[in-house]
Amino acid sequence: MSVVDLARFMEDLATESGQAILPFFRASFGMDDKGRDTGAFDPVTEADRAAETILRGRIRSTFPTHGIVGEEFGSDHADAECVWVLDPIDGTRAFITGLPTWGTLIGLLHDGVPVRGLMNQPYLGERFVGDGASASFHGIRGPRKLMTRRCERLADALLATTDPRLFAPGDEQDRFRSIEGAVRMSRYGTDCYAYCMLAAGQIDLVVEAGLKAHDIVALIPIIEGAGGIVTAWDGGSAAKGGRILAAGDVRLHAAALRHLNP
Amino acid sequence: MSVVDLARFMEDLATESGQAILPFFRASFGMDDKGRDTGAFDPVTEADRAAETILRGRIRSTFPTHGIVGEEFGSDHADAECVWVLDPIDGTRAFITGLPTWGTLIGLLHDGVPVRGLMNQPYLGERFVGDGASASFHGIRGPRKLMTRRCERLADALLATTDPRLFAPGDEQDRFRSIEGAVRMSRYGTDCYAYCMLAAGQIDLVVEAGLKAHDIVALIPIIEGAGGIVTAWDGGSAAKGGRILAAGDVRLHAAALRHLNP
Repeated sequence: MSVVDLARFMEDLATESGQAILPFFRASFGMDDKGRDTGAFDPVTEADRAAETILRGRIRSTFPTHGIVGEEFGSDHADAECVWVLDPIDGTRAFITGLPTWGTLIGLLHDGVPVRGLMNQPYLGERFVGDGASASFHGIRGPRKLMTRRCERLADALLATTDPRLFAPGDEQDRFRSIEGAVRMSRYGTDCYAYCMLAAGQIDLVVEAGLKAHDIVALIPIIEGAGGIVTAWDGGSAAKGGRILAAGDVRLHAAALRHLNP
Repeated sequence: MSVVDLARFMEDLATESGQAILPFFRASFGMDDKGRDTGAFDPVTEADRAAETILRGRIRSTFPTHGIVGEEFGSDHADAECVWVLDPIDGTRAFITGLPTWGTLIGLLHDGVPVRGLMNQPYLGERFVGDGASASFHGIRGPRKLMTRRCERLADALLATTDPRLFAPGDEQDRFRSIEGAVRMSRYGTDCYAYCMLAAGQIDLVVEAGLKAHDIVALIPIIEGAGGIVTAWDGGSAAKGGRILAAGDVRLHAAALRHLNP
């Protein structure tokens, strides 16, 4: 399959998974009180499974030799040359609470290296795609090239993280609190949007911990394609998840690494 | 002016302020690197002022005897029988970081009581309106009635708050942490959307502190119109801001009040 066809295939994956998820988002809006007790129904799990089933089926039938690693249904040929890494709904808490800041993550590894990534937000009609060399945004105002913003110093940086409670108490929490204290402003509740807004030049730094591979693989080619840099806190590859540091400016990334590893 | 005309007037305020704000949201997307340094331009302040200028002008020319309290330009006849309470961009950090979870708040007080409220999100095309007796949502899927969800016990509740750092260290922080420890899940980074998602039956509880009147007045008739309840932490009126407790279910509100005031 050519590069163009691969891009088109990923767009189709995004469209079809989005159609599977959307009926579950804010499904109870306007529903009357009967059957609206909490806990009777778990829409995010239903949506997650419906979307991942579609994604896996389409990938298997198109690329039978490729591996698949998904959030819901685990690993399948994870040692293949080409492996798809899927998170149907990144931002479960956003989804549950009706906020549209979740997204579907579709990433492709080649020999373990993230080479293509897509984030799809079907409710907003927003899509972020990247291949490590370039990245673009497709939304209601039409397509735009994604480019990170210059920001050299921590004191000028806007930082995002999904939830400060996700850092383990003790050293990990302390290191996050230290870098949070050094930046201009920090913002919580961001999930995959933090990395996409970094690629778009709206956010300068994302610091997280405890990520799975499926939380970050799809985002790496978008960040890098937009001119940013994303690594583990020790400066190594981000592709396995764990403790993640992303920056829009390589100088800021270096400053943040020094701060996290004093 | 009749009730219908007043509703229409508020819709016009939302439309016109939205048009003033939108060009500033994510204004730098796809812009090249020149002029993109942080700090050179403050789009949220520009947007705030542009929108509030339009809102004040329209209100003054239509209702010359009404008072106006706005986030940007202060108070004007705040002792009038009818007073408009305006926050052009609630959720400044969301706006700055490119996340679409901010909103324009337009509320109307009659003898100090919030009687009508509107929250407008022009990027998403979402509008939440209420008059204390009923509330509705207008979005891309068409209009829906807003109704809060049944949820009696703290242990079942989804809680939202904008940022846990907004609670003052000491007693206030401790009281928030105590109630956060008693609920099923809490979510940060929500601003005005927390209250609107409570009205929509997606969130059960919102606990905040340090709010201004313009952060909450417009939301009170939406919450109450959807069947919810919103007060100060001492059970008194929420209309002046301060420490706020909103719940979708009156029994949950009572349980939360007991928890906050042991």
